[in-house]
Amino acid sequence: MQVPSPSVREAASMYGTAVAVFLVILVAALQGSAPPESPFPYRIPLDPEGTLELSWNVSYVQETVHFQLLVRELKAGVLFGMSDRGELENADLVVLWTDGDSAHFGDAWSDQKGQIHLDAQQDYQLLRAQRTREGLSLLFKRPFGTCDPKDYLIEDGTVHLVYGILEEPFQSLEAINVSSLQTGLQRVQLLKPNISVPALPSDVRTMEVRAPDVLVPGRETTYWCHITELPDGFPRHHIVMYEPIVTEGNEALVHHMEVFQCAAEFESFPHFSGPCDSKMKPERLNYCRHVLAAWALGAKAFYYPEEAGLAFGGPGSSRFLRLEVHYHNPLMIKGRRDSSGIRLYYTATLRRFDAGIMELGLVYTPVMAIPPQETGFVLTGYCTDKCTQLALPPSGIHIFASQLHTHLTGRKVVTVLARDGREKEIVNRDNHYSPHFQEIRMLKKVVSVHPGDVLITSCTYNTGDRKLATVGGFGILEEMCVNYVHYYPLTQLELCKSAVDPGFLQKYFHLVNRFNSEEVCTCPQASVPEQFASVPWNSFNRQVLKALYSFAPISMHCNKSSAVRFQGEWNLQPLPEIISKLEEPTRHCPASQGQSPAGPTMVSIGGGKG
Amino acid sequence: MQVPSPSVREAASMYGTAVAVFLVILVAALQGSAPPESPFPYRIPLDPEGTLELSWNVSYVQETVHFQLLVRELKAGVLFGMSDRGELENADLVVLWTDGDSAHFGDAWSDQKGQIHLDAQQDYQLLRAQRTREGLSLLFKRPFGTCDPKDYLIEDGTVHLVYGILEEPFQSLEAINVSSLQTGLQRVQLLKPNISVPALPSDVRTMEVRAPDVLVPGRETTYWCHITELPDGFPRHHIVMYEPIVTEGNEALVHHMEVFQCAAEFESFPHFSGPCDSKMKPERLNYCRHVLAAWALGAKAFYYPEEAGLAFGGPGSSRFLRLEVHYHNPLMIKGRRDSSGIRLYYTATLRRFDAGIMELGLVYTPVMAIPPQETGFVLTGYCTDKCTQLALPPSGIHIFASQLHTHLTGRKVVTVLARDGREKEIVNRDNHYSPHFQEIRMLKKVVSVHPGDVLITSCTYNTGDRKLATVGGFGILEEMCVNYVHYYPLTQLELCKSAVDPGFLQKYFHLVNRFNSEEVCTCPQASVPEQFASVPWNSFNRQVLKALYSFAPISMHCNKSSAVRFQGEWNLQPLPEIISKLEEPTRHCPASQGQSPAGPTMVSIGGGKG
Repeated sequence: MQVPSPSVREAASMYGTAVAVFLVILVAALQGSAPPESPFPYRIPLDPEGTLELSWNVSYVQETVHFQLLVRELKAGVLFGMSDRGELENADLVVLWTDGDSAHFGDAWSDQKGQIHLDAQQDYQLLRAQRTREGLSLLFKRPFGTCDPKDYLIEDGTVHLVYGILEEPFQSLEAINVSSLQTGLQRVQLLKPNISVPALPSDVRTMEVRAPDVLVPGRETTYWCHITELPDGFPRHHIVMYEPIVTEGNEALVHHMEVFQCAAEFESFPHFSGPCDSKMKPERLNYCRHVLAAWALGAKAFYYPEEAGLAFGGPGSSRFLRLEVHYHNPLMIKGRRDSSGIRLYYTATLRRFDAGIMELGLVYTPVMAIPPQETGFVLTGYCTDKCTQLALPPSGIHIFASQLHTHLTGRKVVTVLARDGREKEIVNRDNHYSPHFQEIRMLKKVVSVHPGDVLITSCTYNTGDRKLATVGGFGILEEMCVNYVHYYPLTQLELCKSAVDPGFLQKYFHLVNRFNSEEVCTCPQASVPEQFASVPWNSFNRQVLKALYSFAPISMHCNKSSAVRFQGEWNLQPLPEIISKLEEPTRHCPASQGQSPAGPTMVSIGGGKG
Repeated sequence: MQVPSPSVREAASMYGTAVAVFLVILVAALQGSAPPESPFPYRIPLDPEGTLELSWNVSYVQETVHFQLLVRELKAGVLFGMSDRGELENADLVVLWTDGDSAHFGDAWSDQKGQIHLDAQQDYQLLRAQRTREGLSLLFKRPFGTCDPKDYLIEDGTVHLVYGILEEPFQSLEAINVSSLQTGLQRVQLLKPNISVPALPSDVRTMEVRAPDVLVPGRETTYWCHITELPDGFPRHHIVMYEPIVTEGNEALVHHMEVFQCAAEFESFPHFSGPCDSKMKPERLNYCRHVLAAWALGAKAFYYPEEAGLAFGGPGSSRFLRLEVHYHNPLMIKGRRDSSGIRLYYTATLRRFDAGIMELGLVYTPVMAIPPQETGFVLTGYCTDKCTQLALPPSGIHIFASQLHTHLTGRKVVTVLARDGREKEIVNRDNHYSPHFQEIRMLKKVVSVHPGDVLITSCTYNTGDRKLATVGGFGILEEMCVNYVHYYPLTQLELCKSAVDPGFLQKYFHLVNRFNSEEVCTCPQASVPEQFASVPWNSFNRQVLKALYSFAPISMHCNKSSAVRFQGEWNLQPLPEIISKLEEPTRHCPASQGQSPAGPTMVSIGGGKG
């Protein structure tokens, strides 16, 4: 921890926690354009107490994000920024700090040890600093990409926002070390799609799926399960939109919510409202897994395209719905009541197309495994041309949204569309994917998939903290690699996933045996997880497993439902051959680079104790 | 080919080949420092006719090379520069060109198609353009590294210099395409070591080893073999220095020369003077392989360190020497006479230490092979801690020079010294190695090797034009990976090389069999080259071979001579483990960057037809 020098200590005592009572901040030199006229459509609390609140908007034309950071109880300053996975080290930061006399605003970065340094190039640009009734409001902007190698590149997908609170003045920026501060992170999709909102039908009706008056448990993580049912005889409708209903004051508590439809094969489901891991939860609720709606922190309303809707109600579908609410309560607040949920907008006037959800990626099988101690191991699942040829209508399907899914070691997910051996288009990509933040995301651009196209889903895993191989499967300590794509028109194809051919995996275990003095059990009684557990993970066995996965034939699941395959031969299929890859877009440096100030912006502070 | 527009064509006719008769060039704006006082110690003809001659010096303090390019018969301009392997495409160039009216000098680059473009950043800096009796002399300088991604990084080792001759004016730089020009390349070690010349002993004597009055054959490549002998009873001496003797006028013809001592086990060797590939050459000359001296184009005198010399003469060494001269005669000039050779400086007052030559790298065995169609496949040979522990004296040895060696597909060679699992120092590295340019190079810094140290020699190969695997061996179409290091004091260790354990290679062939439907012959009768020839080179077999070479135990040759091993177990040795690698030095951008002119320098030309 940095100890301020005595004179600063004195100044600090003048400030302390009561400093910010009466603070007038005038920005000495405001640069660049005036703040945009448009309001800030997106807003999120950064810390659990909600003292820091971020609003923002995105200009895709200028490739710039405008941020408005509201600091409710300013002490001696604040840090805000972005980093790869939410760590405060190696972060790209803006810092508002005071040395006791004056306040400064600057673009900075933290090194591996958490030490803060001023950026050579100032890319966060302060536009306004204003004292409001709610607190200090800072308005600043930043381009998506800068030419500063110390800067974070703002990309599609998850962004890990970080913050820190300065409790006392610091003589200089370099005197700050993040390890001595109150800090935290918030995940958000910063680059929201810029989609015009489709008109709602005139006969639209709404239904609130809420767990009323839940007493939120005083522990960090709660998944609350609540069963509701549709009215008796509720006919077939189309869901055309849904939005979150978050109980006022609980904005920082409600992390994500999902509505599932239960399985039609059961007449009824027991009513239940309690933690999903409760011993009291009826077994049957595990059969409520068909997603109708999903929301996560920072997301807005979800709209179906004008020509499609998600069918629910009517014969052949269950009347029972399960609401799942994830409460994130790191401060272990007790006694808080919550009635959050999701409001469904639906119409009886069925739209032209039924929307559907298709699973892409890897089959849930242990044959796909990640060795331990890997920091960026990639597994890939295929939806082959043979399957799309057979299962998709001649005019193709249109993917408009996507939800990426892995378990705990997932770090990146991407699905690419390939045609005639050439990668054509990214369906969805998240380079900062977190298993703790799984949203259904509208695509910025609808992707059309035609018969004969190939969809390639790759997940990158970090098993740096594991001692044994992590195999594919349903368990939380096993792994998945899935992209649930939302599309229309609905087809019979529900699952288009692959896994390595099990026979080739046995050849792998056999060669591991031959090359190593240690015994790998390849006897027929040993299960694949047992075989993986006995592999000695030297460089050879790791590299050969990688080589196997990028060479061996695959077994395809080209299925109508999880149990029913399309007709055809799906074993020992060749891996799709890719002859040309999509190129990474080269970032062009903003021309306005020279206009940025070379140092921090000085902010003159008048006032003192109130 | 670029066809100049009519008006330019007219201007061109005014110039043509006779343009440069009377040409006064005044440099309009000379920038930067004055030309250095020091002369140019290094000089080389660029083209076979010697019309372009390059002189240069190196400042390691300023990290800058000063070039003086003499253009003997200036036509409409000249191109000079550097590229990865001597191609005119993707080259870093300076261009002196005239548009008919005025002449320009600029830093440029050629793209993949040979089109020339002006560099955004001008890093070649013109210091003087002067008409002398010999021709136009251009003086310019360039830092080793620039921050321009289009620029070549001048590194230790081979540099491929390229040139082109402009026969007619061009309206603009962009109108020039290298494919329409007379062009060529010359390999050279640009960054010569900056070593102070050791004092020669007072009793130094010289001996010229020359092939007198050779009628150079009118073909592109000739290796001339010439046998001479030391006087009868010539006692033991130390060679302390040697230098080339190149017949005047043949500077562009004599490519490299080596002096070998013949094997002591034969009483005498037949006298012979003729092409080394002649049918008339006596077989016995193949036993003259012990290198005494080697010189290649652009090299200066070779000095032994003050405390060491290379022993020759006396009992136990042959009196017979073989001189080999490589004539490079691409213009197929006939009737040229040459008496080039090497002048040895030797002393009877033996120095404190005998110098020696040790072979590092790979054993000449087919078990080390490169798959076909690889553009950068790396093979690595080890000199293990166990061998250096056993064979080196407690105070270690000192390597002062090195000659890298591969056959035709070699592209890079590097030897690194590691101690306690950590890479410590580069012994010698050539990132632009060419098998056509094998010099003995003085090291910039003597490298001391202690018992227990590891020496790791890696060669990078390009087999892009091969259909079958390239195996290790003596044949010109087989490969080698060798670093002949020159060191003192002499030890018994002549060879410290490795190869993969043959048993593990057989396991590899076995698994290739299992994973592929095609048959790889692993029957005991098949030789290793036959086995490699039958491998189907898919991605799996390539990657597993790489994994094998970086994992499987090795067989060590820790030998006193090529046949006699040091005592000990040398089979199935573990690969040396490297826990920390040497980091690439980060290039700092020169501070003077801003001073460089933004465009080409205008050079005003007075004069016309003579």
